[in-house]
Amino acid sequence: MSRPLDDVSISQIGFIVADVEKTKQEVARFLDVPVPPTVSSGEYSVTQTVYKGKPAPDAECFMAFFYFGNLQVEFIQPNEAPSVWRDFLETRGEGIHHLAFNVKGMTKYITNLENFGMTMEQKGEYRRGNGRYAYFNACDSLKTFIELLESDEA
Amino acid sequence: MSRPLDDVSISQIGFIVADVEKTKQEVARFLDVPVPPTVSSGEYSVTQTVYKGKPAPDAECFMAFFYFGNLQVEFIQPNEAPSVWRDFLETRGEGIHHLAFNVKGMTKYITNLENFGMTMEQKGEYRRGNGRYAYFNACDSLKTFIELLESDEA
Repeated sequence: MSRPLDDVSISQIGFIVADVEKTKQEVARFLDVPVPPTVSSGEYSVTQTVYKGKPAPDAECFMAFFYFGNLQVEFIQPNEAPSVWRDFLETRGEGIHHLAFNVKGMTKYITNLENFGMTMEQKGEYRRGNGRYAYFNACDSLKTFIELLESDEA
Repeated sequence: MSRPLDDVSISQIGFIVADVEKTKQEVARFLDVPVPPTVSSGEYSVTQTVYKGKPAPDAECFMAFFYFGNLQVEFIQPNEAPSVWRDFLETRGEGIHHLAFNVKGMTKYITNLENFGMTMEQKGEYRRGNGRYAYFNACDSLKTFIELLESDEA
């Protein structure tokens, strides 16, 4: 069997945090870079978030992005509504939540990861409508969550 | 203030796992690569492990290494003796434990990270005597552990 992802380069490391405003100050101080803006995951009319197979119009998060060298590092604060983000914060606490991989052709890779034995727990569109994501619980096999990211831009 | 590390490129992502023999099979299947050997952290006479300021001759771990693209990913199974590895497994369970950074001149960077507000919890020499590591609890600020790695080889 060939591997489920053609490109296994990690494109992003994602953290779950309780207070992104506070954490982003500390990370900016560590990197000695300007404090980045916080961005919302966006309106449900665009994001069409699905959590554990059901529409999740209230699921939202607030994100700050950094680069450690060439690698993007994302800090995510969930709101109170159920989501993969909220679930992790409540069950595991703050920490590293996922490793992300870029793909072209989301549907094929969702099938590949499900065939591998991972469970897709959440998916949605980017807040600007220019791409999509899917989270997989890979804690049994890879001991973390995996995120697939597909950008419609070149 | 300049940043505590000159090079903030992440050189390694480190996981703590309960059973490295089982997990390395799954990771090798995901990457479609041969299953790597498991290596011990080594003999105390070489490693000189210090955990929370005291000699830790019984602390040991068993490691398997992979590459996800260009990034090294390490899976660590601790033994039963107290260590940063064991403590994480017992308090957090399996998952991503640290982000590592390469340095040249360990002492200077230990001081820098301590001045930043991180606590060094463990240090030691490589099992082949060709380098050293230091783990810092950065959970307050960066929400993870940080490892400094210094190889004596070019």
